[in-house]
Amino acid sequence: MTSINLGHPVDMHVHLRQGEMMKLVTPTVKQGGFSVAYVMPNLVPPVTSPERALEYKQELQALAPDTEFMVTMYLSPEITPEVVADAAKKGVSGIKVYPAGVTTNSDQGVSSYEQYYPVFRAMEEHNLVLNLHGECPSTPQSDITVLNAEERFLPTLGELNKMFPKLRIVLEHCTTKAAVDAVNACDDNVSGSITAHHLSLIIDNWSGNAINFCKPVAKLPSDRDALVAAATSGSPKFFFGSDSAPHPIKNKRTCNNAPAGVFTQSHALTYVAQVFDKAGKLDNLKKFVTDNGRKFYQIENMATSGPEVTVVRKEVVIPGLIGPEDDGVVPFRAGEKLDWTIEWN
Amino acid sequence: MTSINLGHPVDMHVHLRQGEMMKLVTPTVKQGGFSVAYVMPNLVPPVTSPERALEYKQELQALAPDTEFMVTMYLSPEITPEVVADAAKKGVSGIKVYPAGVTTNSDQGVSSYEQYYPVFRAMEEHNLVLNLHGECPSTPQSDITVLNAEERFLPTLGELNKMFPKLRIVLEHCTTKAAVDAVNACDDNVSGSITAHHLSLIIDNWSGNAINFCKPVAKLPSDRDALVAAATSGSPKFFFGSDSAPHPIKNKRTCNNAPAGVFTQSHALTYVAQVFDKAGKLDNLKKFVTDNGRKFYQIENMATSGPEVTVVRKEVVIPGLIGPEDDGVVPFRAGEKLDWTIEWN
Repeated sequence: MTSINLGHPVDMHVHLRQGEMMKLVTPTVKQGGFSVAYVMPNLVPPVTSPERALEYKQELQALAPDTEFMVTMYLSPEITPEVVADAAKKGVSGIKVYPAGVTTNSDQGVSSYEQYYPVFRAMEEHNLVLNLHGECPSTPQSDITVLNAEERFLPTLGELNKMFPKLRIVLEHCTTKAAVDAVNACDDNVSGSITAHHLSLIIDNWSGNAINFCKPVAKLPSDRDALVAAATSGSPKFFFGSDSAPHPIKNKRTCNNAPAGVFTQSHALTYVAQVFDKAGKLDNLKKFVTDNGRKFYQIENMATSGPEVTVVRKEVVIPGLIGPEDDGVVPFRAGEKLDWTIEWN
Repeated sequence: MTSINLGHPVDMHVHLRQGEMMKLVTPTVKQGGFSVAYVMPNLVPPVTSPERALEYKQELQALAPDTEFMVTMYLSPEITPEVVADAAKKGVSGIKVYPAGVTTNSDQGVSSYEQYYPVFRAMEEHNLVLNLHGECPSTPQSDITVLNAEERFLPTLGELNKMFPKLRIVLEHCTTKAAVDAVNACDDNVSGSITAHHLSLIIDNWSGNAINFCKPVAKLPSDRDALVAAATSGSPKFFFGSDSAPHPIKNKRTCNNAPAGVFTQSHALTYVAQVFDKAGKLDNLKKFVTDNGRKFYQIENMATSGPEVTVVRKEVVIPGLIGPEDDGVVPFRAGEKLDWTIEWN
């Protein structure tokens, strides 16, 4: 195949930040081939009210009028069942759970899930999606590390599914075979999102490489292979969420504390098409980037009036830097030649 | 205990580099508390002849007349059984094996061991030590990663021990419980060296942290605990080799390809004493840093005429940088307060 019409793809996990970085990366959602972006709430301070979520949505929409933004809130004590009801009414789509301290701006994250059961019950009732950053925090002297932090979280996923059987849950950015298996073992209303970079990276690629360092970290070749198999399978339980997470290159250069996050937004569909092509599964690409996410999020008709996206087999070179020196971002696979570019028509 | 006389400690694995970096770090062997340094040959170009090894030794000796340097050669096709015999006569102490591509300046490393069996036989005969960087190269699409590269190498250690039963072999910089077990399973003439940094680091400490990134990478908490147990046990099979590996801070800041290596030379004994103290094993410190290494290398009397080293319980703050901005090195645990300092008397 040399070109594939993907309709109006949806990226169900993006970080668009604030301030100058927001201005830089928000237009790259469309550049990367996506019509809809589901935006994470880990701002500073975090988005914890429907009002702030809608205000943020307006800011983003002003920067990229052709892209549709879906907004979420950051699970925290301010969010009560009443806030959930109000949020649903106002069009907030979901709530994101960050375990305390596991990734960028997660200082105010969750340490115990039980206290939020009333919130989860309200979310179930009002049809909000629960987005899980599925990692247990690493703790000194324990045996939980970046390597098994996701696997250790998986029992919690199963428990939440059992406890709130109608709650739609996404295990975000799956990175292990164990996560794929856990999602498959849950009910139909539990899905997993998979990033572009975890479809190719393994642990070696981020050792000594801050650009490829993200949380959850990329794991073993067998894990990557399981993710490729899940993403390319066509199964409705898996869809694309880039978890594109821009950090200024000057911060990535901090050699003792590089921030976690890989920036894939600007060439998101290129990266994914490359993987599907290599796997001989281009037939299932549209399911992964368009159909499955839309169906799970019940947004089959959102942002479908504009031009459609086609991926075309045509060489593209990933730029070395997007934006200004020091404050710009280095995209994933910078400098590499890839085989697929996108066209809107 | 508030002070311990350690005699004349020996650091049986150091990288002292060339040029400006050599000038900067060579004097830190003594500053770090060591009388003898066993120096690695991965220079550019690598040290592959007895002449070059001795020339290098003279360069080092000129920079630090109070320190005794033991020199090695880099296993490569230039090294024949005849070269081994000549090296032994000239006072070269051992030969280091780098598997191709696993760490700094290992491009010319070994891909297959069989071709070197005649060399190993000659080393056995001439009593040279074989120093093994015990990792299998990570290979794309295989399941060998930085995480299991050492464990996958261990069968080779056992085979070499069986094939050359009198050859003294060091499995350098052990990083896993599996490595400790493998060394223990070999004959008495097989030992393991253990670094300072692997006695405290785990995978989380080098994720996003180029300063703590080295090869072999630090592994799991259970591995670190096994290393501490082995080092502090008093067993003659384990001794100190810092693998202190300086890189200019400007290179560590390269965010897509940070060089592997932790610099511990300047405060080596401080780091090790800290670990032994915490483990309640200060009684065995001298065995680890002085006696075991001397016995294995048959250098009981080398460099023992000068002042002795005492570690004293007295706060020391690790500096943030040693040497010039950009070209200097950031020491391990920079900026931290530790409890042990050293005195020569």
